[in-house]
Amino acid sequence: MPTFLDTSADDFPTRFREFLATRRDVEDDADAAVAGILADVATRGDAAVIEYTARWDRLTLTPESLAFTAAEIDAAIAEVPAAEVEALALAAARIRAYHERQLPEDLRWTDPAGAELGWRWTPVSAAGLYVPGGLASYPSSVLMNAIPARVAGVERLVICAPTPDGKANPLVLLAARLAGVDTVYRIGGAQAIAALAYGTRSIAAVDKITGPGNAFVAAAKRRVFGRVGIDMIAGPSEILVIADGDTDPDWVALDLLSQAEHDESAQAILVTPDRGFATAVAAAVERRLETLERRAIAGASWRDFGAIITVADLAEAAAISDRIAPEHLEICTADPDAVAATIRHAGAIFLGAWTPEAIGDYVGGPNHVLPTSGSARFSSGLSVLDFMKRTTLARMTPGALAAIGPAAETLATSESLQAHGLSVRARLDRLNREPAP
Amino acid sequence: MPTFLDTSADDFPTRFREFLATRRDVEDDADAAVAGILADVATRGDAAVIEYTARWDRLTLTPESLAFTAAEIDAAIAEVPAAEVEALALAAARIRAYHERQLPEDLRWTDPAGAELGWRWTPVSAAGLYVPGGLASYPSSVLMNAIPARVAGVERLVICAPTPDGKANPLVLLAARLAGVDTVYRIGGAQAIAALAYGTRSIAAVDKITGPGNAFVAAAKRRVFGRVGIDMIAGPSEILVIADGDTDPDWVALDLLSQAEHDESAQAILVTPDRGFATAVAAAVERRLETLERRAIAGASWRDFGAIITVADLAEAAAISDRIAPEHLEICTADPDAVAATIRHAGAIFLGAWTPEAIGDYVGGPNHVLPTSGSARFSSGLSVLDFMKRTTLARMTPGALAAIGPAAETLATSESLQAHGLSVRARLDRLNREPAP
Repeated sequence: MPTFLDTSADDFPTRFREFLATRRDVEDDADAAVAGILADVATRGDAAVIEYTARWDRLTLTPESLAFTAAEIDAAIAEVPAAEVEALALAAARIRAYHERQLPEDLRWTDPAGAELGWRWTPVSAAGLYVPGGLASYPSSVLMNAIPARVAGVERLVICAPTPDGKANPLVLLAARLAGVDTVYRIGGAQAIAALAYGTRSIAAVDKITGPGNAFVAAAKRRVFGRVGIDMIAGPSEILVIADGDTDPDWVALDLLSQAEHDESAQAILVTPDRGFATAVAAAVERRLETLERRAIAGASWRDFGAIITVADLAEAAAISDRIAPEHLEICTADPDAVAATIRHAGAIFLGAWTPEAIGDYVGGPNHVLPTSGSARFSSGLSVLDFMKRTTLARMTPGALAAIGPAAETLATSESLQAHGLSVRARLDRLNREPAP
Repeated sequence: MPTFLDTSADDFPTRFREFLATRRDVEDDADAAVAGILADVATRGDAAVIEYTARWDRLTLTPESLAFTAAEIDAAIAEVPAAEVEALALAAARIRAYHERQLPEDLRWTDPAGAELGWRWTPVSAAGLYVPGGLASYPSSVLMNAIPARVAGVERLVICAPTPDGKANPLVLLAARLAGVDTVYRIGGAQAIAALAYGTRSIAAVDKITGPGNAFVAAAKRRVFGRVGIDMIAGPSEILVIADGDTDPDWVALDLLSQAEHDESAQAILVTPDRGFATAVAAAVERRLETLERRAIAGASWRDFGAIITVADLAEAAAISDRIAPEHLEICTADPDAVAATIRHAGAIFLGAWTPEAIGDYVGGPNHVLPTSGSARFSSGLSVLDFMKRTTLARMTPGALAAIGPAAETLATSESLQAHGLSVRARLDRLNREPAP
């Protein structure tokens, strides 16, 4: 049974605090093993990668066969049914159109002191995307990671995707092709992250690594962070639905279950002022659960981490949502924009009952890589900016330096940084001796 | 003696690779001690913070005296000489003006399918800035961290700054006042980071922690990352000067030394096609070094990590710079913009001989918190965006869902996520039964 909470109950503050404190992520300590794998790949390169792949993926590779050839990709893609090709192409086009609007602008201006200031954005040169094998091998995630990188202008874009027993996912290869990925390596685990971070004879190092992975991949990403950039380490994901009670309870039940079916530590929460609706959704969830293929997973998630919170009104619902800072927030109310305007922390907002969260997972356009476990309080979903960096620009004229240089000299002196002050003073002295150039 | 390299030498590729591989950061492993401190503060709150402060800062505090009072700040500020007040105020105004231009725009549009899409930026609710005590207690860093947070719209902005033996830095308090910081706590070390991350009875938790610190502070920030956001962990910093030889060698020597004087692991590099100029700068550095108060520090940095690289031309200079991806890049050439246009990786660029890097440390306007140790390949300096997060927005109409929903259903099915597909299908079925609402 999920947790039932009512904000009018005397013990609500305590119970809600306990609910917020519930840890959903399993502490899977792969760190020690990962440290050894990273060091081994850093030292022995291709040979180490090939050995680990033989051991864990039961796949014999050579330096020449680490990457799929274009012909291999062509052959795999040819198996994909036309309906799936079309759906993936539609998703790619919509994701590309959305992310193209995120391209930041350079700026340059001259200020009243005569100083020319600004900044400029440049893409990361090379990026590597990790795509898990097995159950969590999602072609949609390939699009969500690769397309922002391509839109950003990343020159070299590669994927590492393990193929246990040599079994590749044709849809992953198709998504890579649609997104414009240059090379797909059939390697995974910490050894793949190591190859991307340190480089080997056959796999050139990248500057940024993104994409989800198991505990080994997550630990490896943490360890190589600093040498390369990484995206956030994803925790268990969640959905929160705010509903006023005028939506079909079955729709909301399916939206909750579409989060719960991801894995047993996922979390689905309904917040509503309508107690009758709360009961109806709970019943609809049980009904739908019986018919789902993944009912074991979705049922465990709903039982252990699911919650229905009844509130006084929509204002209170928004406040509760902000305490949770959900990855996905669905607002099924008469005026969803009015509720959204009062929300401060959410990874993505889905407005109105006609916008099921699943649309955002595939074809909406916005990215589905979003901050989990409350990190929407301080971070954002994946975007084009994650594959770019900003360089600030400053150019002084002799006049500008004369105007603001003395203040810099004063502050340098107060911070006991003498050479800083002298570097300004030497130039100001020249100006005092000679007319400005 | 610094390293001398010439790109035309046969062994240049090898020697340059070795130079790039030189590690400058001391591995100071404070992690085990820090884990204990974090756990202690999480459990015992104020009492633990007060005990650690008594032990390490030799300062007896109570929950009531953890923060400076307004009267204490007033009294400290009254000691600051007028010239320093003015200089700091000028710096604050210029930094604010620059960062105000970084405020991102919200966007919302309707696409051809009838889907309303967009995003919106909101500030982090509460941020905590760490300010080191002792030698590295820089008021300029207070401005550089606090002003972007305030411009972003952070509601609650606090500082933790240790005051060993009760000695506060009046300029730090003045900078906090000028930047609009709400509260300054006189605590430091891992215990301060713990208080900011977990909260205590007297110190409310924040969502984001930024600012430099020693090995204990850095280790604590790494450990609380995920629960709160953090900025990058700063490594030893560096400057690279590209000069065509027409600048006063003494100016360039001072610019190199203004980096070297920060600490012994800082790095200063000159890249020039003019061998005579290289020799002149090397001589000027030695001359200036003799007169510097911090000559022990600056001398060690220049000796151990400094470098002069002679190149064929400015194009090669730019390529060398990109291999290093320096935190600060100064371009002292006849047409600095032309060189800058060929640079891909740098934290900040200072254009022309009249723009010493020290201007950027204090009064230029751009932020002086910049990516170090080559991380400019994939990351940016501190900005207003570091104190904001983006929420994506999507709103389907029945028509939009009818247009793109079937593709989502197809992809959900291909990824074996049945409830995802059903959440779309249940709505499409309604549309097929009834006219669109």
